Amino acid sequence: MSGEVETPLIIVNFKTYLEATGQRALKLAKKAEKVSREKGVSVAIAPQCVDLAIVTKEVDIPVFAQHIDPIYAGSHTGHVLVDAVKEAGAVGTLVNHSERQLKVSDINRIIEITREKGLISVVCANNPNISMAVAALKPEIIAIEPPELIGTGIPVSKAKPEVVTGTIKLVREVNSEVTVLCGAGITCGEDVAAALRLGAQGVLVASGVVKAKDPYNVLLEFAQAAIEAGGLEN
Amino acid sequence: MSGEVETPLIIVNFKTYLEATGQRALKLAKKAEKVSREKGVSVAIAPQCVDLAIVTKEVDIPVFAQHIDPIYAGSHTGHVLVDAVKEAGAVGTLVNHSERQLKVSDINRIIEITREKGLISVVCANNPNISMAVAALKPEIIAIEPPELIGTGIPVSKAKPEVVTGTIKLVREVNSEVTVLCGAGITCGEDVAAALRLGAQGVLVASGVVKAKDPYNVLLEFAQAAIEAGGLEN
Amino acid sequence: MSGEVETPLIIVNFKTYLEATGQRALKLAKKAEKVSREKGVSVAIAPQCVDLAIVTKEVDIPVFAQHIDPIYAGSHTGHVLVDAVKEAGAVGTLVNHSERQLKVSDINRIIEITREKGLISVVCANNPNISMAVAALKPEIIAIEPPELIGTGIPVSKAKPEVVTGTIKLVREVNSEVTVLCGAGITCGEDVAAALRLGAQGVLVASGVVKAKDPYNVLLEFAQAAIEAGGLEN
Amino acid sequence: MSGEVETPLIIVNFKTYLEATGQRALKLAKKAEKVSREKGVSVAIAPQCVDLAIVTKEVDIPVFAQHIDPIYAGSHTGHVLVDAVKEAGAVGTLVNHSERQLKVSDINRIIEITREKGLISVVCANNPNISMAVAALKPEIIAIEPPELIGTGIPVSKAKPEVVTGTIKLVREVNSEVTVLCGAGITCGEDVAAALRLGAQGVLVASGVVKAKDPYNVLLEFAQAAIEAGGLEN
Repeated sequence: MSGEVETPLIIVNFKTYLEATGQRALKLAKKAEKVSREKGVSVAIAPQCVDLAIVTKEVDIPVFAQHIDPIYAGSHTGHVLVDAVKEAGAVGTLVNHSERQLKVSDINRIIEITREKGLISVVCANNPNISMAVAALKPEIIAIEPPELIGTGIPVSKAKPEVVTGTIKLVREVNSEVTVLCGAGITCGEDVAAALRLGAQGVLVASGVVKAKDPYNVLLEFAQAAIEAGGLEN
Repeated sequence: MSGEVETPLIIVNFKTYLEATGQRALKLAKKAEKVSREKGVSVAIAPQCVDLAIVTKEVDIPVFAQHIDPIYAGSHTGHVLVDAVKEAGAVGTLVNHSERQLKVSDINRIIEITREKGLISVVCANNPNISMAVAALKPEIIAIEPPELIGTGIPVSKAKPEVVTGTIKLVREVNSEVTVLCGAGITCGEDVAAALRLGAQGVLVASGVVKAKDPYNVLLEFAQAAIEAGGLEN
Repeated sequence: MSGEVETPLIIVNFKTYLEATGQRALKLAKKAEKVSREKGVSVAIAPQCVDLAIVTKEVDIPVFAQHIDPIYAGSHTGHVLVDAVKEAGAVGTLVNHSERQLKVSDINRIIEITREKGLISVVCANNPNISMAVAALKPEIIAIEPPELIGTGIPVSKAKPEVVTGTIKLVREVNSEVTVLCGAGITCGEDVAAALRLGAQGVLVASGVVKAKDPYNVLLEFAQAAIEAGGLEN
Repeated sequence: MSGEVETPLIIVNFKTYLEATGQRALKLAKKAEKVSREKGVSVAIAPQCVDLAIVTKEVDIPVFAQHIDPIYAGSHTGHVLVDAVKEAGAVGTLVNHSERQLKVSDINRIIEITREKGLISVVCANNPNISMAVAALKPEIIAIEPPELIGTGIPVSKAKPEVVTGTIKLVREVNSEVTVLCGAGITCGEDVAAALRLGAQGVLVASGVVKAKDPYNVLLEFAQAAIEAGGLEN
């Protein structure tokens, strides 16, 4: 458990893929919800901010924003306000994704703001040192994503298992409570299982699901692997 | 006319004000729509991106995003995609607001992207030289906002009328078709009228409406002034 | 003439190439000075800010910074102050190079600051529209560099002569006094001559000189071509 | 000891103050050197990058850059290259000063680059959590500067002693070797002594010295206090 989200946790990042924009975001969200319900596994999604409200209204799984800005309500034209994201029904937000990297002081402020508003922060980190660094900022969840593996189909859990175990060890030195996900290159159930066996409490995936021919079946496979590796019963 | 938007045009920027977030964004949008319908004046709104979809579904006036990123669909976690904004029902977007300033090459790219997608770009500019510069990039609309007047209640049309006339002259030297709005410090009908008499084709307002005790009545006064100054009949 | 700099003008951008860092920056600067003196052609250089002071002390040709920040003296740790650059002996600065792009309002402010301090601004622009836009901001010099040609060895003057002539035409519509250089892909004298014949008043070069086996001879060829195309006598 | 720098350590940040630009930077550097020699205390300076080379040539105390970019040699016009800074004679660089904040991944990369080149990184941090975070990135030195105290004349060691002790405790949990400085609001010897008594190994100062009527005497007082608090003998 981290906040309201159970582990093992699968978060699907919709990025700004056309396959996960607007009505297609809604369809994908419903597939994620279906898998979550059928398998009893926690599947969350992170659609674009424009799509947040329409998605949260139609599905009953945790929905994350992909980014919020380190601001409070006021004169901040063109920024993403935590209150808007919360009222739209999001339970939290990704922070510092490798495609939306932030200053360390802004990561710190966003974690404070989300905590204050009862939202969950999922801070992304590129490598073990950075994971340890952001763990010190006390987010609810950390997602380790070696950027050199993103979109490659090569899962970090196989290509660099020591990155996962080493990172978890470093993270635990400074923060015993944070949930650790691992991401980048995950495309099949075995990749999910490998991540969990190495100590990750879930995965952050994007193209492996969104760009799949059959996202429902891929997610089903992920969820089944999570159950088996995580010791949950279906 | 600029794209689908008629002049004189009043655009209300919702910024990230709590008074214009979520359900309150929707209420304010309906007031804007009511004024527009009652007065026959073009009143547009620019809510936060999170609120775009819920607002466009409920009102029948032009809705703008406050910002989009200079990207096409793909791996751009945490960015605002033109396609999402368009599918959500927006007719265009603010660009380069003084609270969300952009590189000149990004302004250029956003103008190209919006044109390609059939959306209207409203590029904000701080001073006459910058207005002339962005006019060269061929947006549909330019909004001149001296930042030193934003939120002061001192309208540029009164404090610095020569800024408005001078800017329009410079803009026209490079671009005879762009619609020119003026903003900053507008709080009453007379401010709107003054702007139109100086040659502006509309106004961009924010706190003057959003933070008003009675936004409906303020907008009504703006619309009435626009009619009188602009020669429209009610 | 633009400020103290005569045309035709050859500016060599040292970038952060190792071949043009520290003592090697000084050696390259002396070669540029030698060519300038021998040929009577204006050859300027733009070394890294760390190397500005040592270079200006040893050579008597115009030296530009590669960037300054839009600030005045004060609490701006880690920024480049116009006064420091001026006291170090620079005559001006590059602005908005495609590798150091700036917000339009910052370009505007840097142009104002340099003018106020008696320095020359050389604003880089990626395409005809952006060139026209920055021309409206009244810099002393504009350098047109299609980024898709940078470092290719394909000169814009040959690959896209209409870009050069079209850009000069657009620039002249808003600014009859600005000096126009053209850059990207220039590696031989003929490239320089072609640029000048199309109406450019000089060139901005980098790898074509800095990475050449014999930078002195390449510059000599450039200068000779500039003389012939520009009607100067050696 | 951290790298080549002894503690207690006083670093004077010249910022972009006119009083510490060009020839005035050189004069101030010589005063710092004089105090260092007379008192046998380690006094370092961080002039602007434009002034690095002229300062290092004339004084024999440690000189830091105020910032370098997370780049290697190449096509990075307008950036600060580690090799240039090193060849200019700097022993290290400030990183992530509150006036030049960086992405966490860029801080990480700059620390790697400086270590690889044998330079010392002095990473600034705003609060205890951020200090712990950057300590995980293994810089040689951390400087804690509560931004709300910068330039106030109120030293953190007096206003918030628990910030200093608490931060040092957190930092030591993840990094037992890093040197910890404290900054912001330091104007007299007692402020320096208080910082050292709380466990800091030195101070990072700026306006307290640069803007002082008599910087030499202020530094002398700082050095004397450092000796007494630090147990050094003069």
